[in-house]
Order: sequence, then structure tokens, then C-alpha cells
Amino acid sequence: MEYMSPSSGLWSGRKRAAIRVRAKIMDSARSWFKIHDYVEVQGPIIIPALGDRPSSFKIRYFGEDAYLTQGSQPYADTLTRNLGKVYMIAPVFRAEKMSTGRHLAEYWRIEAAVPSCSLEDLIQTEEQLVCHISNCLSKDAKEELNLLGRSVGDLSKIRPPFTRLTYDEVIEMLRDAGYDIQWGATLQWEHEEYLSLQFSQLFFISEFPVGLETYFYESHPDKAGSTLSVDLLAPEGYGEISTGGIPIGKIGELQRMMEEVGVSPAEQEWYARLRKMGHTPSAGFALGVERITQWICGLEDIREASAFPRSINEIYP
Amino acid sequence: MEYMSPSSGLWSGRKRAAIRVRAKIMDSARSWFKIHDYVEVQGPIIIPALGDRPSSFKIRYFGEDAYLTQGSQPYADTLTRNLGKVYMIAPVFRAEKMSTGRHLAEYWRIEAAVPSCSLEDLIQTEEQLVCHISNCLSKDAKEELNLLGRSVGDLSKIRPPFTRLTYDEVIEMLRDAGYDIQWGATLQWEHEEYLSLQFSQLFFISEFPVGLETYFYESHPDKAGSTLSVDLLAPEGYGEISTGGIPIGKIGELQRMMEEVGVSPAEQEWYARLRKMGHTPSAGFALGVERITQWICGLEDIREASAFPRSINEIYP
Repeated sequence: MEYMSPSSGLWSGRKRAAIRVRAKIMDSARSWFKIHDYVEVQGPIIIPALGDRPSSFKIRYFGEDAYLTQGSQPYADTLTRNLGKVYMIAPVFRAEKMSTGRHLAEYWRIEAAVPSCSLEDLIQTEEQLVCHISNCLSKDAKEELNLLGRSVGDLSKIRPPFTRLTYDEVIEMLRDAGYDIQWGATLQWEHEEYLSLQFSQLFFISEFPVGLETYFYESHPDKAGSTLSVDLLAPEGYGEISTGGIPIGKIGELQRMMEEVGVSPAEQEWYARLRKMGHTPSAGFALGVERITQWICGLEDIREASAFPRSINEIYP
Repeated sequence: MEYMSPSSGLWSGRKRAAIRVRAKIMDSARSWFKIHDYVEVQGPIIIPALGDRPSSFKIRYFGEDAYLTQGSQPYADTLTRNLGKVYMIAPVFRAEKMSTGRHLAEYWRIEAAVPSCSLEDLIQTEEQLVCHISNCLSKDAKEELNLLGRSVGDLSKIRPPFTRLTYDEVIEMLRDAGYDIQWGATLQWEHEEYLSLQFSQLFFISEFPVGLETYFYESHPDKAGSTLSVDLLAPEGYGEISTGGIPIGKIGELQRMMEEVGVSPAEQEWYARLRKMGHTPSAGFALGVERITQWICGLEDIREASAFPRSINEIYP
């Protein structure tokens, strides 16, 4: 394992600018949440090790196994039930072996959960938040954006509504472009990149097939096999920056869905225990801090968006 | 291990108020840092597993061992060198077996680092920050504080300077009160509690003996055996809410100090590697989010200051 930063302790001007932009993205996101009466919260980082979860880092917790969180969506029920609209900015962790320049093992997310919120409301919430961030940055980060060679004018012009595609439409677009992809398949990085290069503005992809998303979203009322889920993608090849949807409400349906996609009984138990503490219908999304920083700054390598990046086999000091 | 919250998913009014106050503490701290031109940063959560560190949680990181951070002070050099004054609000982790109602295994800290800053400047920085937080809360959290039975008037009256004691003075006070404690000993919880009950306002304890603090602080230029370190304690028995000081600059002195207090050669190597990336003289402190929340809200159990508390042998869902 390599502990030393390849670039020594002194950062390039680009890296300094990127880390300053990252701070301003967080600040502008918080100002939007504050204006709209969201309560700031922190979900747990250490979670119970129920089930076998190779995508999570395992820790030894007072002699027993536990995992590092992959996101606080499972805790949104308790939070929205007690506090209404909530948001958090916190680190999450993924132990999957993914390519180094595109994925981090440790990254920060802006997560939000909104009680009694439709998919359309959720999409509009994300649009407003991301427009607020872009517009704030175009005013507050001119110097950094100029240094990074990004257009301040383009950022200031970002307005809702963003282009909206469904998963079904995206599969058609990809097949028309010659990709060999079936309905129901996960979008790979090459697919996202192709789509992302077709647009000069942010765009949504909604209604993913059952079983494709990390969390368990409600079935679409008018479209069998599809869910109330939505991703937000950045243009110019940067790809997915946010994922979200409406989590399944009924415990029976949740358990049926978990069985269908092969979640182990032990992990099902964790969701069931959380759900037994009560359910508030809500919708939520998570925006990747390093991903939105990468897009706004035009960074080739996502590690430039983190002061001390952690990726597969790499821990800089 | 117990996974279920003792109180079910529905929180008491006190807990809701405490979590809202916690959010407002973070918000007011950030507004102070923003006014004073600090750059917001995030240190790493996963750190290299050099040395044997029973007080840190161990994780499996792509087939190798790593640890969860206990705080980003060792990374302050790189951050201040590249960005000047910095702050972060992030989770930290302690695997020590400490009493459940007073200590958390996972908690959040407000950390700051300031280049070229004397101990006196550091003390004044903390005073200003904590006064700003208290005064903001007295305006923005009246409803929550009333529900919790805390005096809004008392918070609004908090002003610098806070009482300043040295470690030497504190040892004398404790011996006068009948405690059997020698100069050089760590202050135990009972000592902190006794001291904290003697004051109705916040107070500092500075110049701790070499080897007592978690980090490695500069030797006091006029007092052999003492360091340039300072803790901030809350009154009414709440005890320590912040710890800080001036980290040792010279690599040779740092290594001598680490050897003196018995740091393993492997862990010394981690500090040495970080230091080889360059050093900027700076001072820093860390304010415990749950600790300041506990004091401001008057909470008996620190777990009330966290939405999903993790303490020894306990992971609520």
C-alpha cells in the first residue's frame, strides 16, 4: 500500500482551487437548505454488521463486527419522523474495487430527506438546490474557476428545468448509438459517459428497473417493473452526481423486494428493525460532494477533489 | 450487542430540541469561521495502520489493516500550508472502553488550525468562537432552550475573557480540596467534574505536562516539563469541551518526544512521513460537538446529543 502523496505536501494551484470550490459548494448547499427550513442532522457512520456486505468496509467494534456506512437513507425514516425535512453532509465509504481516477473509497455526500414528497417534487428540489449551488459559485468562486479554466458565465446561466429522461428512453438512445444493452441492465460507466457527452446541461434519468438501485424504492404505480427513482447526471462526460427516489413504505413489500433481489435474511433484519421504529412516507437524494466538485471544476481525476483521497489500495499519508 | 434504541423511533421532546440545538451550534460555528476567513476542509477518516493503537478502531481496507481517525491534527500541516486558516466539522472515533453516559465511540468535532499562532492567540480564538456560538444560540434557539429548562439569559451574557488556570494551579486546587493527585498525573473525570462544579462560567486549563496530551505539543519556553497546550472546560460539572495547543515543529524534537512517551516506531514513522511533506508553524484546537451540545442543553447523558449514538457495546439500529 502506498502511503505517500505523489505530489508531496505542496498542492498545485489547481488542487488548492478545487478544495476552495469544494468548500464553497458545501456552504452554498447549506444556505439553500437553511432558506428552505431543513434541519441539519448526522446519521451514524458505524452501522451494525447484519448480513454479508462485501461492498462495505468491516470494522472491529468492541470485539464484534460492524460496517462503515454507505449512506443514511435507511435512517431517514427516524429523522423525518422527528424533525421533518432534514439534510446532512457526511462521509460515506465503499469497499468495491473500482477504477482509481473515477471512484473514491471514502467520499462526502450531501443527503436530504423530505416527508410526503412525490418523485416530481424531489426532482424539482434537486434542480433548485443544484441551480442555487451553481449560481452561488458563479459569484463567489470566480477566481478559482478562472484558474481552473471553467466558464463562470456557463455556471451562472444554469436554470431549471433540466432535461428529463426515463431509463426506458436512455436504453433506446444507447441502442440507437450501437450499444448492446438490454432493458433491465445496469448503466455502466461507458454508458453514462456516452449519455453525459450528448448534453451540455445537467439531466435526470428516472424510473430505473426494480433491483438496479442501491436502496429499495417504491414500484412505479403505472409502469410494472420500474421504480420511483431518479439520478442526476452532469454533462461533458462527468456522469452521475446524484441518486435518489422514494423508499418503499410497506414493510411487507420491502421484504418481498429484498428477497427478490437476493438480500441476505440477516441484512433484511436490519431494514425490518429500522422500519419497526415507524415509517414516515418521504423521498430523498444524495449528491456526491467530490462528483459535483469534479464537474464544476472540470477535474480529470476525482482525487483532485479531495484533500487526502482514499481509493483502492491507496492511502496517502 | 444491542441494536434497538431503548426509546423506539419516536424521540422525546428533549431529544428533538437537543438535535435542533446541535444543528444550530454547527451553523453558528460555521458563520464565525466564515466571517474570519477560514477555509472549510475535510481531513481523512481512514488513516494508515502504522503502529499498534488500541484506542483506534481497526478496519479491513482492501485486504490490509487501517484505522478510523481520532482527529485531523496530524494533517493540519498540509492543510494550513496550502490554505491558511482552516476548519472542519467531521466525525472521529475512539475505541477505548469508557463509561457509556459520558463518552461516545463515534462523535463529531469542530477542529480549527491557524498558521503562526501563539497559545494566547489560540485561547482568544476559542473564546471568540464559543462566545459567538453561545450568543447566536441565545437568539436562535430560545424555544429549544426553554423546553430544555436552560437559561437563555445566561447564554447571552457569555463574554471573554474566560477564567484562565494553569495545570499547576489546578493541581494545587485539587490537593487543597483533598484529592490525592501528583503533578504530572492525568486529570480524571472526577477531577474535571470537581473543577467544573467550582465555576459558573467556562474556563481554560493550560500548560499540561509533557506526555499527557493526545498530540505532541511544543515544550513551554519558560517552564521545563510543561507544554503549549490548553483545554476548555464547561461549568456546572460538564467538564472538558475542547482541547488544543501548538504542535511540535522540529522533526527531531517530535521524534524525541514520541520516544519519551513510548510511541511505537511504526507510528512514529507515520508522523515523520507527514512531517516530511513540510511544516507550517500553527496552533489548533478541537471542540466536541456533542460535548458543547450537552452543556448548552443541560443533558445528563451525552447520548441525548446524538441522533444515533454509538458507545461501548451499543449500536442502536
